[in-house]
Parts: sequence; structure tokens; C-alpha cells
Amino acid sequence: MNTPLITPVILCGGSGTRLWPRSRAAKPKPFLPLVGDATLFEATLARCPAAAGFAAPVVVTGAAHLAHVEQQLADPGARVIVEPVQRNTAAAIALAALRLPDDAVMLVCPSDHHIADVDAFRAAARAAASLAAEDWLVSFGIAPTAPETGFGYLKRGAPIVDLGFRTAQFVEKPDLASAEAFLADGTYAWNGGIFAFRAGAFLAELEAHRPAIAKAARAAVAAGHAEGHCFHPGAAQFAAIVSESVDYAVMENTAHAAMVPAAMGWSDIGNWDALHAAREHDAAGNSLRGTAELVGCRNVLVDTDGPRVSAIGLEDVMIVVDGNEVLVTTRAGAQQVGKLRGAAEQ
Amino acid sequence: MNTPLITPVILCGGSGTRLWPRSRAAKPKPFLPLVGDATLFEATLARCPAAAGFAAPVVVTGAAHLAHVEQQLADPGARVIVEPVQRNTAAAIALAALRLPDDAVMLVCPSDHHIADVDAFRAAARAAASLAAEDWLVSFGIAPTAPETGFGYLKRGAPIVDLGFRTAQFVEKPDLASAEAFLADGTYAWNGGIFAFRAGAFLAELEAHRPAIAKAARAAVAAGHAEGHCFHPGAAQFAAIVSESVDYAVMENTAHAAMVPAAMGWSDIGNWDALHAAREHDAAGNSLRGTAELVGCRNVLVDTDGPRVSAIGLEDVMIVVDGNEVLVTTRAGAQQVGKLRGAAEQ
Repeated sequence: MNTPLITPVILCGGSGTRLWPRSRAAKPKPFLPLVGDATLFEATLARCPAAAGFAAPVVVTGAAHLAHVEQQLADPGARVIVEPVQRNTAAAIALAALRLPDDAVMLVCPSDHHIADVDAFRAAARAAASLAAEDWLVSFGIAPTAPETGFGYLKRGAPIVDLGFRTAQFVEKPDLASAEAFLADGTYAWNGGIFAFRAGAFLAELEAHRPAIAKAARAAVAAGHAEGHCFHPGAAQFAAIVSESVDYAVMENTAHAAMVPAAMGWSDIGNWDALHAAREHDAAGNSLRGTAELVGCRNVLVDTDGPRVSAIGLEDVMIVVDGNEVLVTTRAGAQQVGKLRGAAEQ
Repeated sequence: MNTPLITPVILCGGSGTRLWPRSRAAKPKPFLPLVGDATLFEATLARCPAAAGFAAPVVVTGAAHLAHVEQQLADPGARVIVEPVQRNTAAAIALAALRLPDDAVMLVCPSDHHIADVDAFRAAARAAASLAAEDWLVSFGIAPTAPETGFGYLKRGAPIVDLGFRTAQFVEKPDLASAEAFLADGTYAWNGGIFAFRAGAFLAELEAHRPAIAKAARAAVAAGHAEGHCFHPGAAQFAAIVSESVDYAVMENTAHAAMVPAAMGWSDIGNWDALHAAREHDAAGNSLRGTAELVGCRNVLVDTDGPRVSAIGLEDVMIVVDGNEVLVTTRAGAQQVGKLRGAAEQ
């Protein structure tokens, strides 16, 4: 089976608070160089080059972040769909599918994840695209490395040739005991929010399971207008769409759900602890950005946009300086960052 | 015995690095409001008011800090001796003694300590002054509250009427085992650098044990000039004085060393941990200055001059933000602050 041309559909929505204060509403996570020199958005685009069988990307983003997208979008063939409001992933993917030929194979990628092993990503993308070309609705099944309770899980079913598996079950965020059982079991994978669909197949399943969303998305596209490489759906029609994730709207309902396993050093960079893990460390487990001096520290992250950070004797602590905000948290505390007053005030 | 009038001699030398980055060479510890609203220098002056039997103070300071002294010196009767260079405490006290009448009773006070119990301080000052008027050279013996290895100790000898004791022994900074033994013994006190002398008696002992210092100090005063309430000793003559502490030069040699016990909530505010202890705390042991939000923290000090500090899950950690410097240290690490690059660069 030849791999079809793959159109990356890059989702640039959302504006989480878990990497506050570096990530702010005005410049959220995808547009920051959190791992390496490239931003997460740039790295997402760079994983999908023409040379590796990818078509020019379609980026779906909000009006508020369009300037960041334009600034970081190097590919002159790229197209951008500008959402007037956020309506979650089912609507965003529907817009992209409607703006592509029916037989286009889409690879839906969040723009705020880190993937260490790009070759493994591309291999999984090829397998997923081949299944999508056969009208499977494909999820990447990220090989789990810990009993995470913050992710949904996919249980793999029967194999589909040598490309992947039927998805036997979608499991919502589990409790710790279940997550530990899944990890031990070996047939569960994390649902990383990466999907491959044939555009027409996706739309048919959306029509079948969420006809209202499909109808509203078609209306929004019909009322929309192109402006250079940007497409603006009709604002009123788009705003009328129910906000629902593609998992709930389509994947958990379709009879054609498949998954391809992917062990590719994936991280959703879900908090400062996850970011610390994704970054390079010295022998003591410390990772530094900006001017810093550490004395007797272990597993310490420092990330400062200006002021020098001097730290003594700390272990498992993260220190972030951004403008007029200083965050100091333990690794365990990293999960509570989004609840801080500073994060909420944005 | 009536208490003689006491002339406070306030020493404003030095510019330690142990409270960096708040304390800087340009504005060191005495001139900062580290505990309460007053600066340590202001609080030192306020402990010695006319109403409690104190004469107008004599302040000995360096030219570099004169502006801070002038700004914070409220007493119009105060006099200032301006040292062209630093020559340690023997020289500083000699200058003050030479500028006072022979029968003046001097109370020598460092300007960078905190004393919680001002009444106890004044009671000890009165006892020390009474002994000094009888030509004893008197040290305050601070009641020890921990086996500190960073202080010298005084061992008390025979009582002198009901005012104090002969000083049986001066002990240099001990090792931990010795410090623990001293604490258990009960006859040892910390040498806090607070002294009472009759000016003439001090000069006679200095003459006897360090004639070169006495001679050079007389020459510096002879070559000096007054300017308003300031006195400037001759620069060349003063610079020629050997730099020596009053303990080494005089106290350890005189046959008239006495001590008065003082349990007065004393702290030399020797590092951020000591400062944390001297400040007020909430029920969780946290002490905050500036804009801060603490979540699940215990025994945390935050001191920020502007940026908001948000901290999660920390215990026994101190966070200081000052201008372009951020310090984060454990309590144990507080002793190493002076060795940081930032502290050394000043």
C-alpha cells in the first residue's frame, strides 16, 4: 500500500494556564520556544515537511492568535482557517475537512505537544494515513510510560493488516489504580489527540453522529470568505456550533475507529514538571534557561526572561521568571499552577 | 549607684553580602527596613532616646554611606564621624572616644542587629554603663538560644556587685560540639559586639595594649576637621591604622573585662534564615513582604520589591526578589548566599 499524500491540519486553539507565567493568554504555549529553539507550533510544522510526504499544512486558529501564526508560519503554501470563537476540536476539524477535497488525507495535530522522536512520528503518520485512506478514523495511540491520570486511554483491539489496530475502547481519564492497571496490561495507549482521517470519511461520520455540528459547519463555510491564504468562516454560523471534542462527537461513536501505536517521546507539556522532563538536563538533573547560578541543587528547572536566578540547596523545584511574575513550585505543585491568582487573572 | 548619662556610639561600617540581593554594597543592611518599618540603623537610634537616659549619639560611618546616615538620622544633636576607609572596630571606637570627654560613658552599638526586647536592652545598658563608669570595659553577654558556631562566646566569672560579672574568658567561634557544651553549661554568652566604656578608660587600655593604634588614632583626630555635625579624621593618618577588632585589640587583653547578661531577643540578622526568624509569621510559619501568593507552603519567606511571587508546596525556602536578581534558597543554603556570583560581583 502506498502512503497517500498527507495534509497536516494543525490545531492552534486554546490558551491554557498550566505553564503560567511564561504562557499567557496573549501568547500561549504553541507560540513559545519551550523545548529547543523552535516554538512548539514551528516544531509541529517542521515534523511534516514536503520531503517526508506531507502536503502544505492547514492551520486552524483563533483570531486572537492569528498574528503569532502568521509570524511563525514559514510555508508559503500554508492555508489558515481563522475561527471567530473557540468551538473545540469537532468544529475545527470539520472546517478543515470542508475546505479540503473529499479524498484528502488529514493528519490532525495539536500544536502544543513535544515529540522527541520525529522519525517514529512520521512512521506512525504514514501508517495512520494508509488506514485513513481506507476510511478508518485513526487515533495515535501513544505508548504510555507512566500511570497518568490526566489523559484518556485507547484500548487496542484486533490488528488491521500490519498498520494498526481497531480501537476496542475509549477510556476517559482514569483513576490511579485503573491507570496503573492499564500500564501493566500493555494493550492501552494514551489518546494524544493526533488523528488521521480522509476528509470525506470524517464528514460522513460527523453527519451520522452529530448532524447539527456538520450542518452548522457547512453553513459557516458557505457564509465564509477567503482573504489571501486565510479563510474566515461565517461568524454567526460558526458561533452556533456546539462545542464538543472530536473524541466525544465522532471517535467514540464511529464503527471505524482505529489506532496506530506510537512510541515517539511524546509529551503534552502539560505543566512545568512535564516541560522540565522534556528539556535537556545536566548531570544533576537541572535545566536552565536564562541567567542562573545553581549551588547544590538537583532536578531544578530555572527559566528566566531576564533577572538572574540564584538558587541554593533546592531539589525538585521549578523557578520561572516572566515579566512581573515569579513562580516557584515543587514538582507536585506544578499541577496547581493554573489555579494561582496570577494564572486566573489573565 | 546612679546610672551615668550614656552616649550611644553607633557603628555603621561594613557591607556584608549575606543578605544579598536585598542588601547591596551601595545600600547595605543597616539602612534597610529588614524587620518592621524602621531600618536597623533607625531602630538602633530609637533604642537610645534621651527619655531613657541617653545622650545624643555619635555615629561612625564610612564616606560611602554618609548619605544614608544623614537621611535616616533624626536627632539634630547627633554627631557623625566619617571614616575615609574602613579600619575595623578598634579604630572606629578610638575615634569616638577621642572626640568625647574622658568621662563620657560610651555604649558601642552595631547598627545592623535586631533587638526584640528594648526594655531588656535598656536595663542591660544601664548596668553596663554603671560598670563602665567604674572603669570596667564591659561587653554585653547575649543569652544564647542555640549552639551557634558563628559567634564568639564570653564565659562569665565572678559577679561584680549585682550589675554583671568579670569576663573569665573570651572564646573564638567554636566548633559545634563546643557550642553545644557552652549552651548546656549556662555560664557562656554570645559576644554580640555591644560594649560600654568610659572614654578615658578605653583609651588608656588601648594605649597599654595597642599603642600604635592609639597613636595613629590621635594623629588622625589631630589632623581632622569638623564640618557641621560631621568630623573628618585625617585621611592619611587614619589609613595608617592597623585594622583590628576591639575584641582582639583591647577586650582580650585588659584586666578589667566585664560582662552584663542580656536576654533581649537579639539577632545579628546574619542571613536570610535569621531574618525570617526575626520577622512576624503567619500560622504556617510564612512571612511575606510584597505581592505574593502562597499555596501549601510552610516556613517560607518571600521578600519582593515588585514582581509578584507565586509559590506552591515549598517548605523551609526563602525567595527574595530585588531589582534584576532573584534568590531562592533553602534555610540551610542561606549561609552560602555570600558566596554566590551575584553577591561577589557587587
